[in-house]
Amino acid sequence: MLDQIANILHQACNVRGNDRLMVGVSGGPDSMSLLHILNHLGYKLIVGHFNHKLRPEASEEACIVDSFARQFGLSFISAEGDVPSYARENSMSIEEAARQLRYQFLFKQAQDNNADAVLVAHTADDQIETILLHLLRGSGLAGLTGMNYRTLPNPWSPRIPLVRPLLSTWRTEIDEYLLANNIKPITDQSNLETAYKRNRIRHELLPLLESYNPRIRNNLIHLGHILREDYSVLQDLVDTAWKSCLIEQTPGCLSFHRPGFIELPVAIQRYLLRRAVAYHLPGMVDVGFDAIERGRLFLLQDRASGQVNVLSGLWLIRNGDSFALTFNPADLPPKEFPSLAPRQIVTIIIPSRIEINNGWILEVELCSKSNLSEKQDNVTDYSYTVLMNLEELEQPLILRARKPGDRIQPLGMGGHSMKISDMMINLKLPERVRESYPLVCSGGQVIWIPGYRLSEIVRVKDESKAIVRLALFRESTT
Amino acid sequence: MLDQIANILHQACNVRGNDRLMVGVSGGPDSMSLLHILNHLGYKLIVGHFNHKLRPEASEEACIVDSFARQFGLSFISAEGDVPSYARENSMSIEEAARQLRYQFLFKQAQDNNADAVLVAHTADDQIETILLHLLRGSGLAGLTGMNYRTLPNPWSPRIPLVRPLLSTWRTEIDEYLLANNIKPITDQSNLETAYKRNRIRHELLPLLESYNPRIRNNLIHLGHILREDYSVLQDLVDTAWKSCLIEQTPGCLSFHRPGFIELPVAIQRYLLRRAVAYHLPGMVDVGFDAIERGRLFLLQDRASGQVNVLSGLWLIRNGDSFALTFNPADLPPKEFPSLAPRQIVTIIIPSRIEINNGWILEVELCSKSNLSEKQDNVTDYSYTVLMNLEELEQPLILRARKPGDRIQPLGMGGHSMKISDMMINLKLPERVRESYPLVCSGGQVIWIPGYRLSEIVRVKDESKAIVRLALFRESTT
Repeated sequence: MLDQIANILHQACNVRGNDRLMVGVSGGPDSMSLLHILNHLGYKLIVGHFNHKLRPEASEEACIVDSFARQFGLSFISAEGDVPSYARENSMSIEEAARQLRYQFLFKQAQDNNADAVLVAHTADDQIETILLHLLRGSGLAGLTGMNYRTLPNPWSPRIPLVRPLLSTWRTEIDEYLLANNIKPITDQSNLETAYKRNRIRHELLPLLESYNPRIRNNLIHLGHILREDYSVLQDLVDTAWKSCLIEQTPGCLSFHRPGFIELPVAIQRYLLRRAVAYHLPGMVDVGFDAIERGRLFLLQDRASGQVNVLSGLWLIRNGDSFALTFNPADLPPKEFPSLAPRQIVTIIIPSRIEINNGWILEVELCSKSNLSEKQDNVTDYSYTVLMNLEELEQPLILRARKPGDRIQPLGMGGHSMKISDMMINLKLPERVRESYPLVCSGGQVIWIPGYRLSEIVRVKDESKAIVRLALFRESTT
Repeated sequence: MLDQIANILHQACNVRGNDRLMVGVSGGPDSMSLLHILNHLGYKLIVGHFNHKLRPEASEEACIVDSFARQFGLSFISAEGDVPSYARENSMSIEEAARQLRYQFLFKQAQDNNADAVLVAHTADDQIETILLHLLRGSGLAGLTGMNYRTLPNPWSPRIPLVRPLLSTWRTEIDEYLLANNIKPITDQSNLETAYKRNRIRHELLPLLESYNPRIRNNLIHLGHILREDYSVLQDLVDTAWKSCLIEQTPGCLSFHRPGFIELPVAIQRYLLRRAVAYHLPGMVDVGFDAIERGRLFLLQDRASGQVNVLSGLWLIRNGDSFALTFNPADLPPKEFPSLAPRQIVTIIIPSRIEINNGWILEVELCSKSNLSEKQDNVTDYSYTVLMNLEELEQPLILRARKPGDRIQPLGMGGHSMKISDMMINLKLPERVRESYPLVCSGGQVIWIPGYRLSEIVRVKDESKAIVRLALFRESTT
């Protein structure tokens, strides 16, 4: 067992003989063994213990770990945290809060003490429980790979690796090691990580699976090994695809080249979208298959422009040959917004198709009552598409940029009128976009800010007989 | 449900409206629904029923399916088979034999009747049971992808696809459909495919998994969708790697370029080896992780030549910059065999290092008793390495090609002597290799055919004091 762990430390964990290692030690069997083994192998160690203060005996346990470390002449660092408060403030479970605080502590201490890595004592049993937890929760390939021997970057550091050298060691081996070396770990602690579901997996699911196949534990470890390498190959392809498709990356918006995207294999399309969602929602663990698939199929459709809500208010916006992911469409790069040429004023004939800058097109058509429902279906996907009551329009409609003093009575604001200039600031339209942004006017009044607001005056009512559909979109080359 | 299935038939199954479809119908709920749905959608159908004759009511069931087909004016073809005999002859389970005979019948009939596809009625429930079966059995990515909507080539045809349009339809939906359409399937049949393990998964494991996550069934279906696309990307990379690394492909031997292989990502190395094993063992379902990893790590080692038994007598043979997989090393391409230049005769000095054709090297050294165990360890991996008892050697040893009348007393044949020329035929050494094959001789006697036979005369005994180690190998450039 020692040879195997020494080998894993050297090869899979990439730990060097003279590295300083920060070891997380709870005092339980796994971490006490890890500490003992690392000390035996001659590594330079710092012992870190985080007191979650969730049980009365917690302080006593810190003393036990301290004296164990002292016995080997190792420096011992401990801290305590208010787990329940942290959980409340960050709306997370007690278990997740304890985990976050513990890792934050370990990595902070690792940095302050110039440690080269943080080591934790997850075993092969933890590994297969993790794989099964992910399978149950509904994971793709990533979850089924389990934990890595070495993770860098990790959520707590871009520079200090998180290392798990016991991932191939079974608890039964740990128990034998403890016995052989006369180590007395804290055994009666209600292990925080051993939450309800994990406990059920350990005591109920795994024994059942073993009754189907006695080698299931080894098979799951092998599965992890296989899938980790498979996943790594796929992620390399996603790196390449990301670089070749990315147009612009700002804190609020990612934009990509759509023709490049639709040429990618389905699997890589999915991973690229997952990565783009993770960019905006880094803490989001379970992004569902349906959300990703909804976005992906929307991008594959033969339609020019539009947007869908992928999840949690995150928009996927198509604009001709590009698409973007953003919480706020105003965060799109300026060139993604429609614009008119300086002093351009266009008289709108019904029906007509008007080309403006950058491939943007304004399509205007009359709808009969009979085909309205079909037309309205489209409207839900296209925020750049609106329906207007023909009877309220003063023709000809005019397409032009804003003028000083322009106002609009936005739909649903009870007829209250707002200045266009204030509105554009409120909508967070980028400054250089505002001056050339196309507005539709009727009788000198602004009745539509495409993509943002329609006027109350022209809204379609139940009794409206003739309806005009306006769509501003960009055509794609594919 | 009908819309969804019509859509799947069109898109995922690639079935055209005027295709002739051979439908496998057992008479159970799934296949009776499939037949009814396909007929309703207006496809041209042929009904195929295979009578496994494993139960007394089997013939009656054939009649039920026949009359159901007749009711729609469809042609009905049935056959019966002796499943137990087939199972015995091919050393397979009754279930597997039934499956093989059934598919052979369906594809034979499809071909004879010019059908464009064979359709079977596996449901979404079958799909998740299959995924879990593979997980339990110990699968990599391939098994977890489950079944495909369309499989071509398949084990029964290179040209006629196997199509499964109900893979997204749940049994509960089937039951509703049967009720709504007043279809009475054969329900009391002890479904052959529903073997013991599958039944346990259905009635024991899945309900338990649902108690962890009520959405587990959907999640497993999504997992299949995700992994199928992931797997497809990886297999495309394996195709490319295979083409770029393959040196020669004969019925008995595959040889590859090792420097190209070791540059591949670990995952692709594993898949390439799996595919090479499958080439030699097409019926082998469960090739273990350990077997593939043993072969792969052997190829990565910094050693010049040697061979390992991957599994079932299949050898992985390294020779300098190439490696080969074969059941019989004599099936290697001729250029992979060592050879002497015409009329080349070399006097062997101990120790020495002699270079012959094509980068092959004969290394000769004296071993002391003390380092023998270490040297002997090597011998197990190198069939081109032997130990000889120095006291029995008549020096100088000579390296030369065969001469008429050459004989050897092979080890373990009780001193029985054999003609070298006969021996080379028995060993299946390719004819053009034999004339130049290097032999080691002592006092005019052949004492070693490298890679094949050592002489009884020179074998190392317990009392042997001085030992000579001979190794014939090829150096690699990496």
